[in-house]
This record gives sequence, C-alpha cells and structure tokens, in this order.
Amino acid sequence: MKALVKAKPERGLTLADWPDPKPRPTEVVVRVKATSLCGTDAHIYNWDEWASQRVQLPRIIGHEVCGEIVEVGAEVASVKVGDFVAAESHLTCGACFQCRTCQGHVCRNYQILGIDFDGSYAEFVVLPERVLWKTNPDIPPEFACVQEPLGNAVDAALVEDVTGHTVLVNGCGPTGLFAIAILRTSGAAQILATDISEYRLNLAGQLGADEVFNAKMLSPNDLTQAVLDATGNEGVDAALEMSGHPDALHLAFRAVKNGGRVTLFGIPTGLVCFDLPNEIIFKGIRVDGVTGRRLFGTWYRLAGLFKAGLNIQPVVTHTIALADFAKGFELVNSGQCGKVVMIP
Amino acid sequence: MKALVKAKPERGLTLADWPDPKPRPTEVVVRVKATSLCGTDAHIYNWDEWASQRVQLPRIIGHEVCGEIVEVGAEVASVKVGDFVAAESHLTCGACFQCRTCQGHVCRNYQILGIDFDGSYAEFVVLPERVLWKTNPDIPPEFACVQEPLGNAVDAALVEDVTGHTVLVNGCGPTGLFAIAILRTSGAAQILATDISEYRLNLAGQLGADEVFNAKMLSPNDLTQAVLDATGNEGVDAALEMSGHPDALHLAFRAVKNGGRVTLFGIPTGLVCFDLPNEIIFKGIRVDGVTGRRLFGTWYRLAGLFKAGLNIQPVVTHTIALADFAKGFELVNSGQCGKVVMIP
Amino acid sequence: MKALVKAKPERGLTLADWPDPKPRPTEVVVRVKATSLCGTDAHIYNWDEWASQRVQLPRIIGHEVCGEIVEVGAEVASVKVGDFVAAESHLTCGACFQCRTCQGHVCRNYQILGIDFDGSYAEFVVLPERVLWKTNPDIPPEFACVQEPLGNAVDAALVEDVTGHTVLVNGCGPTGLFAIAILRTSGAAQILATDISEYRLNLAGQLGADEVFNAKMLSPNDLTQAVLDATGNEGVDAALEMSGHPDALHLAFRAVKNGGRVTLFGIPTGLVCFDLPNEIIFKGIRVDGVTGRRLFGTWYRLAGLFKAGLNIQPVVTHTIALADFAKGFELVNSGQCGKVVMIP
Amino acid sequence: MKALVKAKPERGLTLADWPDPKPRPTEVVVRVKATSLCGTDAHIYNWDEWASQRVQLPRIIGHEVCGEIVEVGAEVASVKVGDFVAAESHLTCGACFQCRTCQGHVCRNYQILGIDFDGSYAEFVVLPERVLWKTNPDIPPEFACVQEPLGNAVDAALVEDVTGHTVLVNGCGPTGLFAIAILRTSGAAQILATDISEYRLNLAGQLGADEVFNAKMLSPNDLTQAVLDATGNEGVDAALEMSGHPDALHLAFRAVKNGGRVTLFGIPTGLVCFDLPNEIIFKGIRVDGVTGRRLFGTWYRLAGLFKAGLNIQPVVTHTIALADFAKGFELVNSGQCGKVVMIP
Repeated sequence: MKALVKAKPERGLTLADWPDPKPRPTEVVVRVKATSLCGTDAHIYNWDEWASQRVQLPRIIGHEVCGEIVEVGAEVASVKVGDFVAAESHLTCGACFQCRTCQGHVCRNYQILGIDFDGSYAEFVVLPERVLWKTNPDIPPEFACVQEPLGNAVDAALVEDVTGHTVLVNGCGPTGLFAIAILRTSGAAQILATDISEYRLNLAGQLGADEVFNAKMLSPNDLTQAVLDATGNEGVDAALEMSGHPDALHLAFRAVKNGGRVTLFGIPTGLVCFDLPNEIIFKGIRVDGVTGRRLFGTWYRLAGLFKAGLNIQPVVTHTIALADFAKGFELVNSGQCGKVVMIP
Repeated sequence: MKALVKAKPERGLTLADWPDPKPRPTEVVVRVKATSLCGTDAHIYNWDEWASQRVQLPRIIGHEVCGEIVEVGAEVASVKVGDFVAAESHLTCGACFQCRTCQGHVCRNYQILGIDFDGSYAEFVVLPERVLWKTNPDIPPEFACVQEPLGNAVDAALVEDVTGHTVLVNGCGPTGLFAIAILRTSGAAQILATDISEYRLNLAGQLGADEVFNAKMLSPNDLTQAVLDATGNEGVDAALEMSGHPDALHLAFRAVKNGGRVTLFGIPTGLVCFDLPNEIIFKGIRVDGVTGRRLFGTWYRLAGLFKAGLNIQPVVTHTIALADFAKGFELVNSGQCGKVVMIP
Repeated sequence: MKALVKAKPERGLTLADWPDPKPRPTEVVVRVKATSLCGTDAHIYNWDEWASQRVQLPRIIGHEVCGEIVEVGAEVASVKVGDFVAAESHLTCGACFQCRTCQGHVCRNYQILGIDFDGSYAEFVVLPERVLWKTNPDIPPEFACVQEPLGNAVDAALVEDVTGHTVLVNGCGPTGLFAIAILRTSGAAQILATDISEYRLNLAGQLGADEVFNAKMLSPNDLTQAVLDATGNEGVDAALEMSGHPDALHLAFRAVKNGGRVTLFGIPTGLVCFDLPNEIIFKGIRVDGVTGRRLFGTWYRLAGLFKAGLNIQPVVTHTIALADFAKGFELVNSGQCGKVVMIP
Repeated sequence: MKALVKAKPERGLTLADWPDPKPRPTEVVVRVKATSLCGTDAHIYNWDEWASQRVQLPRIIGHEVCGEIVEVGAEVASVKVGDFVAAESHLTCGACFQCRTCQGHVCRNYQILGIDFDGSYAEFVVLPERVLWKTNPDIPPEFACVQEPLGNAVDAALVEDVTGHTVLVNGCGPTGLFAIAILRTSGAAQILATDISEYRLNLAGQLGADEVFNAKMLSPNDLTQAVLDATGNEGVDAALEMSGHPDALHLAFRAVKNGGRVTLFGIPTGLVCFDLPNEIIFKGIRVDGVTGRRLFGTWYRLAGLFKAGLNIQPVVTHTIALADFAKGFELVNSGQCGKVVMIP
C-alpha cells in the first residue's frame, strides 16, 4: 500500500510503498477514506525537539481517521467487514486507577495512534477493536475523520452546561472553531471569539460567533474591556482557552465573571505567570484542564450533537490527496486554513 | 381600574371596577401589558375543591404577567418608573432553611401572586420589588408575560444537561410545549413527544419535536415499544413527565434507559402505583421532582435562552381582551389551545 | 473439592464433592477464605418463584467472597498466585451503551456469579480476572468477603455527599447496617434508623445511629412525626430506603425536607402507590434508584473508607463452617442476625 | 464601651473608650463573648500597604465574633434578645448577578465587618440581622467565634466529596488546621500535611493528619516524591493549597493524580509561574478558587459537622484578654500559635 512514513530524523515525510497490514485477533484492518492533519502531526512533520524525543522511526503517522473495515481479527465481535468507523486515537491501559474509574482519557499509560503504533496516513490502517467508533454512514468522510479533534472540542466546551450562558473562545484554530459550532448547537446565549487571524475570525463568524475580536488590533487591556463591554460588564459565564497564548490566558481569567469557569485546552510553549488572588481565588472560579476525550461518553455525545444539527462544514476548508501532503502541512503551518483533510 | 375578581364562591369571575392600587415602600405598581391563563387560574375559575379550600374571597387572580412600572415605593432601588418587568409569582419567606440555602423555589412558607395576594388580571398590579424581573423590551408582551411558566419548563427540561441527549416529553400542554422549544434550542439529539390531542401534537412538531405519538391511538405497551423503537431500542436519556397521567408516568419510566433520568412535573390527580424495582431501582435512574423556578437562576437562564434563539411563538396561540376572559377559560378547558394571553 | 450445590428444584442445598475447577486463559482459581450469605442466596435456598425461574441447575451458588489466588490463566496480567482478592459479582458485557459510558453497574446484559456461572460456596471458585479486587491482606476474611454488599451500601449512602447532613435509614438488615457505619465514618450530622427488629436496631445503635425507632411500636403517622421531631421539624437531608416496605417508603418521602433526596435500594414485593405531588413534586426532591456497584469506583472508595476507620465488625454477627449452611440460612430467614459468613 | 480602634495610620491599635452603639431598625447589638485574630487583622495591625489603601480611619476592627444579643432594632424578626449568635462577616449587596444566583460569597459589591464598618474588637458590636447565625449555646465562645474562618476551611475542604479520598493540605495555619479537622470528620482516607513550622505540623498531627512533612527539611523535588510515596505513587485525589507559597502551589499540582482536583485558598504575595500543560492540562484536573463562605449553606454544614463530632480544640491555642491584644498580634506574626481568641 501507499503510506506517508516518517522515515528519517529530519523535516518532512516520505510517500512510500509499505507492506499491507494484517490484523491480530483483536484488531481490524480499515481502508482509510479520510484522514486529517493535526498540530501534533505538524510537530512531527517539522521534526521539532518534542517530536525527535517522542517518536521512534520509521513510523506511519496520522491519528484522525475514518474508513471502512475490510478485515477483522478472529476475536472481533462488535464490528464486521463493511462497517464505517472512526477511531479513538488513545489506546488506554485498562489497568490503572484512571482506567478503572471512568477516566481513561487521563490514563497514565496510554499509547497514541500514529506515534506509538502505525497511524492512518496510508491506504490501510490496523486498529484495535476497542478504539473503533461506528459512525453513521450519512456523515461524509471528511467530517467523520475529524471526530477525534471534534471530541476534544466537545469536552472543552461542555465541561459544564453552556445552554443560556455567555462564552468566550480564545483561539480559532480548528478545535476552537469546532467549539464555537458546538456552543451554537448547544444554545449558548452569546459567543465571543478572539484570534489574531482575520481568516479564522471570519470562519468563527460563519460558525455562529456573535462577536469576534482581533487580538492583534487591541492592547490586552483594551481587548479585555471590549469583551467585558460585550457582556454588559458582567463578564462571561465561561471562557475556553484554546490558543495557549499567555495574553489569551490572562484575558480568559479577567473576562470570566465571579463564580464562572475557565477551560484550559490550548498548550502554552513556556511558563505562564498568574496573579492568582485576582485571577482565580477572589473570583471563586473553577478551572478545568481538558485533554483527550471521554471513552466513550464523548463519542456518544458527539453523535447526538450531529443529530441536533451540528454543522462543521465551514471548518473543513481544504481536502487534498495523500500525495499533496507537503501542501497540507504548509497550510497548517501558515494558519490560513481550518481543518485540512487528506483522501488516500 | 378594571379587574377580574373572584368575588363569589362559584364558577366564573367578575369584571369589576376596583380601587387603583398603591405601593408600600418596598413595592411598585405595574401597568399590566399582558397576563396569561394558567391551569391554576382555571381551577379557580372552575371553583373546584382545591380552589374552594385554598383561595380567600374576594381576590383578583392571575400570576403570569408583564408590564411597565408606573409608580415605585420609597425604598425601591433596583427598578424605576418606565421599566419593563415580569414577575416571579412566588413570594418566598427568606428565613427558612430552603430560602437560606438557595432553594427558595421550595420555600416552606411562600405566598403566591393572585392567590395569597391580589394578582395580575387587572389594569394595574402591585408587586414587591424583590419578585421583579427586568425584561428586554424587545420581547413582545405576549411572550414576556409567559416567562413564569416558561421558567417551569426551563427547570423541568434542564435539570441535567440535555445537549446531545435523547429526550421524551409526555404531555404537550403549554409547559410541555415550552419544554420542547427549550430542548430544541439546547441541542437535544432527538425529541419525542406524546399527547392525546392532535392539535397539541401538531404544535409539538412545529416547535421541533422529531417524532410525535398520539397516546390515544396506541395501547400503553405499543406506545412504549414505539418510543423505544424510535431510539433504536436504547431508551431515552431523559423523560419529562409533564402530563400527570398514570399511563404517561409509566411510559416515562419504561422508556428511559438504564442510568437515565425522569423529571416529574405534571400533577396526577390521585395515587399512582409503581413497580419500583423494574421502573426505578434496577434501572439505576434518577428522578427529579420539579416545581417553581430557581430564584433567580432560572430567570437569568431564560434570558440567555432567548438570546440563543428560543422561539415560543407557536405556543402562544390566542391573544384576547380582558373582557373576553370567559372565552379564554373555555379554550383552556377544551385543550384546543397553547397559551392564552389577555391584554388589559 | 467440597461445594454447596443447588442440585434439585426444591428447598435446600447439597454439600457435594465437585470437580476442582480449572481456569481459562483470562481466569484465575481462588481458594475461598470466606463467603457470606445474601438475601439472594436465601431466595435460591428457599427456592421461591423468582429463583425457580432464574437459576439453571445444577449450580454452585454464592457471590460474596474473598480468598487467595492459587492458579492463574495464561493471559492474566494484573494479579498473581498468592494475592488476596475479593470479587465484583457482576460480569458486565463491556459492549452496551452503559458499559461504554461508565455505567457498567446498570449493564443491560450482565451475568451474576453464583447464578449465571458457578459461585463461591465451595473450597475453590473460578473468577474472571476483570472482576477481581485486590484487597489489603490486613482486612480479615470475614470482612473482606462482604465488600460486595458493602459496596451496595457505599453507593446507596453516598449518592451525594452526606458530610454534615441528617440522614434517615429505613431498614437495618445487613446493607442498612453497613450504610449506618458508612454514614458515621463520612461525618453525617445525625443518623436516624428504623426497623421492626429490636435485635437489628440494637446493632444500628452500636454502629453509630443517633436515634433508632421501632416501626412496630408506632403508627406510620406517629413514626413520621417522631422522625421529624428528631430533626427539629426540619426533615432529613437524605433518606435511604433499605427495607422495601411500603410504610418505610412513605416514611422516607414524608421525612425528607424540601429539596432533599431519597435513595431507593430495598426491593418491594409488589406495587407501591404514591401521592406524587406531595411526596415528590412539590417537595422538589431527587430520588435515586441504586443497584450494584460502580466498576470500580465504588471499590476504590470502599478501600478509602476502611483507611478512614470504617468499622463493620458489629454487622458480621455469625461465622460458621460451610457444612453448617442450613443453620446459616435459618438465621437469615429469622432476621436474628447481621451478616452470616461461612468459612470453607 | 472599651474598643480596639485603628485610630492612626501607623502600626498598632488603640484601646479606647468608645460610644455604646445603637442599632438601626434592621440591626442588633451584640455583647461580644469572644472575637478572634485573623491574618487580615494582622495586616491592619501591621499597617502594611494593602491596609493603608483599604481601611478608612478611625475604625474598630475585628470580624470573627460571637456573643449575646442585647438589643434588637424595630424590624428584626428572626432573633431576639438573649440569643447566642455568630456573624457572617461579608455584607453582600443582594442585587448583583452573583447575589441573585446563590453566589453571594463572590458578590461584586460586598462590605466587610471590621473594615467597611465597625467590627468586633470591642465590648459591643452592631450587626445587621441578615448576617447573624444562631449558634448552639453548647458550643463554647472560643470555638463559636471562629466559625467564620472555619467556614472558609469547610468550603476549601469540601468543594467536592472527600469521603474515602486521599488529601494533601499545604499550609497548617489556622485555616489549614481547620481543614485537617474537617477532613478527618468527613472520612478522608488519608490526610497528608505540609508546613515549615514544627509547631504547626505537631498540631496537624493532633488534628488527624496521617503524615506530616516539614517543607524546610526537603528540597521541593524530594518533598514531592515523599508525598507521592505516601500515596503508593498514585498521587492524591485532592490537594488543598492553604499557604500561598509558590513551592507549595507547585507541590499541589505535582502531587495530585490525573483527574484529581486542587483547591486554591492561600494568597500568594506575587505572580506565580506555571507549566500549565504538565501541571494542569494533560492531567485533566479541576482547580477551584475558594473565598468567603456560601450564604448560608456553609454555616448549616458547619453546624452539621459539629454534630458529627468535629473537634477544633487543638487549633485554639491561645485565649487572651482584649487589653492583651499586642501580645496576640505578636503571636500571629510569629506563627507560634494556632488561633488566638480575645475575650472582651
């Protein structure tokens, strides 16, 4: 088969011929219908310090995927050849305290598809039965394959109920944009969005943000005041920090009302310093670190959101062939895109 | 002023001339712009046993209201003449355990507007400052006045988060219909509705119910199976019992999935007998009795729902003059209506 | 080995010689150190209607057990020969919605140890690896084997936080007594207990109940008033219904304060009829059906409770040899006991 | 009357003769039976920068108090002369979003006893009726007066249920010590405590801490490892940060297990810098800023904790006369004390 392989410890990927995979008894083979690009993949593509310490070569990367099952192992019971599936990318240990108490999303020993075992940037991928998620075949492949990052946005947006609440979303990358779409479907009263890219703020507006703010155009103080003004000086009920930028982090804590909540999802690249009394303690707020997806509560909920009318079409801005991967990562690195999907 | 007075211990009301009301220092006078008919008002109108034991005569009835403040008492600080307001109909004691622990909606000593003190079926009504709810003047009076029962529906529907969940609504009277509208705005995955009136099931469909079932047309067992079939035999995540009918109560408990929840809001007229092991215990479900509205969390949330696009227009089926009250109660007693609003 | 077998469709059990069990690859063999008698076992012993329809013969019964692992299957990884273990008695399917969303305790397809497969009333029992619970060897076997029903009490008592709250426990059978011990360890403010047996009320007092009430000595109304009086007429924050008796059920709903909660755990034998408006709806209470144990959150929590000083010694009133089983079931049927433990 | 007055903008207080206070219609006069020293009072005594900007002179300070009502205003209804009361020190506005949604503890406009109006370091204090908390007269004054800071500890410790959980308490000042006592009463499985004072760690042990660690004796890394070792390398379920020290903050985030929670209560004096991905996000933890006390849920809960056996005796280390205030503040500044109580 054709596969995109991280073959050498340097920038880039290699489109290679690779042996067709065979399933073990508890695994299936999936013919990939769509597989999308994630920031993590870009780190591996760019071969930054994190990637060089984390990834063993050679490795087929990619972990956002959907496709059709073409072969099943002998012990597989819950799916069959022909089923349309997506995949949870975290393979949890099942044995740690977290796994045994419904918190597999923070398993202490999980492995990741496309990092710890071969991934989905290929014509076929082998997947353990227990990470499979049967997907409604009416959902187009370019939407079905992004359910994994969409699940992150579900967990980030819906830590607590948002219906009738005012929400700030800082950072309109694909996960931030997904969060806006989810908030709109969930009946948020008012959605405010910030980013430094007009391209992405425009997408935010299309997805239902009531007001967007370009953080490049305002000082941090002026931006905070503009956000507060948009709430009638009440502050937001919830702030979703999806950017990882220190200014955006402080904005989240300053814009949230006393007794509100902040979700931390975006990954800062260094230390961030806080005025804890005024940013958290005296405000009496809750802060939630969000990572991964609940197994499989998040996936069920996402299926329900699709039924409720969730529309992520504006987020999937580019669909390309596997061979055009370099162009895809160029797009991701430029920020002039939403989600980029490859069709093998 | 003109007022509808329950003057005599018999069926009906009297349209009477009544002294213009004056506020005490902590009260305001509101010129009524719209006031709607509730089942409780119908009980008083019909003068059934409950009403005859509960209501002291003479009494101006009516407790769903909005209007403009025309006079304020000396100590009133939070509103002013000209403000557009609705009213929480429960005047809580402020001193009981429930009131002191954020559960004023189940205050042990509350008084009710239009029952324990004069109500809103009149040109003017006196209201204590602390029950007032400033309302966005962009909301038309015939919608603003129904915020009180709409708040019941908010609390019944949103006991727990419904976003992405499947919900059954039994009973499509005004509060059930409001609940359907709220569920649709809140991103429920699938809304199933039952009633015995085609008129009301038709309204349910207009408000966003995915499937409606006429409980007159099916045996209880067949109806249960039909509802389960609509969920792929999974059962619903939540069932809202808004009818009070024993068959509908059992349907709620049978249709909810293991681990799901049932809200009890509709008022049965007699004892209802349950198979607790199979209807509740072995299913591991939660049951919530819902009454009143959270002070004032529910009202804030409702304001947020309006911003999120909540549309209750189909529920308000009739708007009549105060003098036409007899026609209004005829409509309520017939069931061939949603909400009936009077304009003094 | 020696085993207690339900061999014939009639009252009683047979102490028989039975083949030593062998584990499949994912199973272990446990030498039973202690195994206790449950109401369910008594139903099978007595061979009532439920039992005759539910249990296939021949069957070694018993599902409350602890012991030492003496053999492990080829694929077993998390335990080893010599480990001291207890067992979750429910073998969940792992595939249903409930299992995939952290609600395995209400799995739609679970099998039960000692009913659907051979149980623990024997010298050895085969157990799947995934139901094992490694137990602190400092806990004596007669306490370790009752962790399964103790887990029921944990879930019944701790549906919501009880620290500083007033709690009523109706029914002082073993699970009710366990609940009292748990409530005392958890910092309940006041524990009130009812039963019809002075023997069991005496045990309730030993375990920390502040006041006990003999329901045989008072009319239902007087008992309700006595309980309310004990709370200064406020009502209890939570009521645990552990008896299944209709009078006790109504007591629970009448004694709980507005906004409080009722746990349903005891199994009534027939329909029970409720005045829903006054018992649930207008009180704005929550009702929780409790069954089984959370996998494995409840078990972890129970381990924590033992560390916190949970003392269940008074509940384990009788320890007998396997051969004395008839005497054990006589005790269970009489109600003149707490928990009865057999030592093979 | 005699009163301790902050009369001049400099270190210290003045014991002065002051006019006996008179109540307004909604106020009462309380004869102070005990009033305790808080860190805030020490800031005012020491007249640091914060105090000099916050406090208007002259001012009777003090906000932790209990006493007997000796006079009531004309409109006071819920208490009477002779009642034994303590006081919530925050006088909330009642009108902001927070106040109207059960979050008065983070009211945007609250005033503080002993700062914004005259306080309790005197023979008599005037208090608004609505801040009064009727206290069981069996509770000795030196314990009754510390209910205010004890309420802080209740909210910090019991953000979520701690029964059966492992908890780390960083900082054994009076509020940290209170938290340890509460955790012990609430059935925490294991309580680990850190401080830099052997005197206070000794008190922590008396109150029920299972293991105490002197942060002066170990490097931050070694202390983290020691705490993790004490949990069998699982990490704690919850960490309470009661010290405000940056090292203790990092310890809290490093010692908490994935999916656990951290309470922030202690007040750092400057910015604190975090590695958010590894300290919060990838761990999937919850962080709660805690300030003030829930009105009046916390107070009710505290009354329940006293009934459950809460013993704070070891925390109240010193009882002195009002005239010995200088000695009291010397003790507070030295750290060689728990709570210091003055008896006027």
